[in-house]
Amino acid sequence: MGEGIESPASQGRRRKSPPLFFRSLLLWDDEGVDAAVSDRIEQIRKQLETVRAQALVVTHLPNLLYLCGFTGSNAILIVLPDSIHLFTDSRYTLQARQEAPGVRIDIMRGALVDAIGEFLRQRAARAPRVPLRVAYEAANLSVAQWTRLRSAAGERIRWKSTTSLVEALRETKTPGELAVMRASAQIGSEVMAEMLKMVRPGVSELDLAAEADYRMRRKGASGPSFETIVASGARTALPHARPTAKRLRKNELVLLDLGVILRHYCSDLTRTVYLGRAPAKIRRWYQAVERAQQAALETLRAGAAAGAVDRAARRVLDSYQLGRYFTHSTGHGLGIEIHESPRLGRMQKQEIRAGNVVTLEPGIYLEGVGGIRLEDEVAVHQDQTEVLTSAPRGLLEL
Amino acid sequence: MGEGIESPASQGRRRKSPPLFFRSLLLWDDEGVDAAVSDRIEQIRKQLETVRAQALVVTHLPNLLYLCGFTGSNAILIVLPDSIHLFTDSRYTLQARQEAPGVRIDIMRGALVDAIGEFLRQRAARAPRVPLRVAYEAANLSVAQWTRLRSAAGERIRWKSTTSLVEALRETKTPGELAVMRASAQIGSEVMAEMLKMVRPGVSELDLAAEADYRMRRKGASGPSFETIVASGARTALPHARPTAKRLRKNELVLLDLGVILRHYCSDLTRTVYLGRAPAKIRRWYQAVERAQQAALETLRAGAAAGAVDRAARRVLDSYQLGRYFTHSTGHGLGIEIHESPRLGRMQKQEIRAGNVVTLEPGIYLEGVGGIRLEDEVAVHQDQTEVLTSAPRGLLEL
Repeated sequence: MGEGIESPASQGRRRKSPPLFFRSLLLWDDEGVDAAVSDRIEQIRKQLETVRAQALVVTHLPNLLYLCGFTGSNAILIVLPDSIHLFTDSRYTLQARQEAPGVRIDIMRGALVDAIGEFLRQRAARAPRVPLRVAYEAANLSVAQWTRLRSAAGERIRWKSTTSLVEALRETKTPGELAVMRASAQIGSEVMAEMLKMVRPGVSELDLAAEADYRMRRKGASGPSFETIVASGARTALPHARPTAKRLRKNELVLLDLGVILRHYCSDLTRTVYLGRAPAKIRRWYQAVERAQQAALETLRAGAAAGAVDRAARRVLDSYQLGRYFTHSTGHGLGIEIHESPRLGRMQKQEIRAGNVVTLEPGIYLEGVGGIRLEDEVAVHQDQTEVLTSAPRGLLEL
Repeated sequence: MGEGIESPASQGRRRKSPPLFFRSLLLWDDEGVDAAVSDRIEQIRKQLETVRAQALVVTHLPNLLYLCGFTGSNAILIVLPDSIHLFTDSRYTLQARQEAPGVRIDIMRGALVDAIGEFLRQRAARAPRVPLRVAYEAANLSVAQWTRLRSAAGERIRWKSTTSLVEALRETKTPGELAVMRASAQIGSEVMAEMLKMVRPGVSELDLAAEADYRMRRKGASGPSFETIVASGARTALPHARPTAKRLRKNELVLLDLGVILRHYCSDLTRTVYLGRAPAKIRRWYQAVERAQQAALETLRAGAAAGAVDRAARRVLDSYQLGRYFTHSTGHGLGIEIHESPRLGRMQKQEIRAGNVVTLEPGIYLEGVGGIRLEDEVAVHQDQTEVLTSAPRGLLEL
């Protein structure tokens, strides 16, 4: 196994020969690390000092992508004060080199946790009088991996459980990330606008979902950010309905919830329409949901509590006697993952900050009757909010 | 929280009032459990006796789907000798009832691990003199969840780590599962055959991938079983290449690797073609890969060691001096997940059994030059094998 990217001061300690424990490719690229990535690594190193750890083992792949750019499906990253190491397998040799040029890449056979355990064991042996303090992502390391890692790393490691070190950084989107998220939301909105034109009796839910996914790809997205939801009639009362072969009929609700992944960033929006002339009851429900979303939007700002945004939406639905049909929270952050912090749940005390991007998606679900949800994506700036999604928002009667 | 499905003998112990700890919906449905599911639960209960556990906490969602039919994204199942309990959240109230009619459903607010911890604590309190022995899926429970679960469940639980209790059952497909997998492979093969007709200079990798995903949906699949791989030219040397905007050119290799999900079951196949008249070297490489696959197929049978199948393919590539470019294993099981046991790796001692469905996918990858992979899906029966995929297999020069 090779050495990492070392600072000049540490080069004297470079080991001479790599152990035979695993095959290694020494792929350090002199082009250096992408600026944003380099900045993120520096922030993580500061966080590590705060929790008094010398290393972070990154096992959550979205965090790993955020910190080094690698998109493969099997990898562990170790951030040290003087180097960054990416462990992956031979399927990804070339891809890792292309995607993560500023990182030392180690290609492993067998379980990655064994390899990083051995790596940490050797690192700890460099300073035998004090234990090496290693932080790990407790929410993204299985008990089985953890057991194996501890055994491979030996006794000289002091483990520190962390749960959102990288996730906390990811909450605050940089201008570069916001630009990608705007474009991702734009594609989602365009697809939604096109889908609304395709909603008519006789089309199946599955047909519509297939069209949505095809159109987002044709517009440059790498795919849907979650399984596209198309539900009609009483099935709209299932908040996470999978599309079925059911065909749309006259005089029923149709709910479309979709998002795209563009350059690794997710978007997410929902529209509910009525096929035909909506009865007064449906109009009233729709108005309630629309006003609930508006109230949430007016409450959302830098400095507000996440829970206050949820409660604003809930208050409106309560005033329509519909609060008990609003069975989920008002929204969630998104970015590399479709669900991120901050969560906009009733009890969330977390403060909304500039750079957050969240969904506002109140909805009501009446079993056997139907559901209505309206969802947009909003970026929070210092003095204002910016709605990133733009498909038609009023009750459409098609 | 409500009681589970109890056997007549245990009904006398039914508690009178549910604790207030969580909201509960008593959704037991008298229609009973689907026969296949019921059989699986019985097999799991036997396994539990073998490992001397009284309960299994199922946290791996594909296992949960296999055991009870529920497809939501947030759930934990507990299998007890006399009842089955599904814990999920309010987004899935109706869906859980529809999909898992034979299971007691508890709709939770907050973290599921807290709720099942409390559930197990109460269950353990019924027999205060002996600890309750609870098996959990160590490969699919995070350290953070585990810490929280143990704390919520209290001291009266004796935990048993398991890693493949349900996965071992899933290796042997029933006739019903095989029928679905045949249909899934059939749709994948049809899509592949159509894609091969679309391979021509000027089409982009992304265009082809979008077409593939669209066509599988139109044929009734719920989507791709993994991100469709379309790679051309030197990019074929990346075994897990993501499609890019690169357009296909005359005189280069094009690799297509795709699969579909049909009724929750994955398919997976790969074809490599040459755009133009292939040079002698490419023909020879293709022949080597084709013969390697053939050798693997001849070795694959009930009773063979998984490693022997891999070694048969590797021997052929070695005889062409291409063995060192075969950088991954020969194949893998598949089913509800795209990668399952048995794995066909060099050192795998596991015995192949009737009911296994595996891929045979030897490939060679020459950096800067290109790669060739040929992949089919094969079901193992008692006295024969059955190739489930059927797209054209010889070297196509387009």
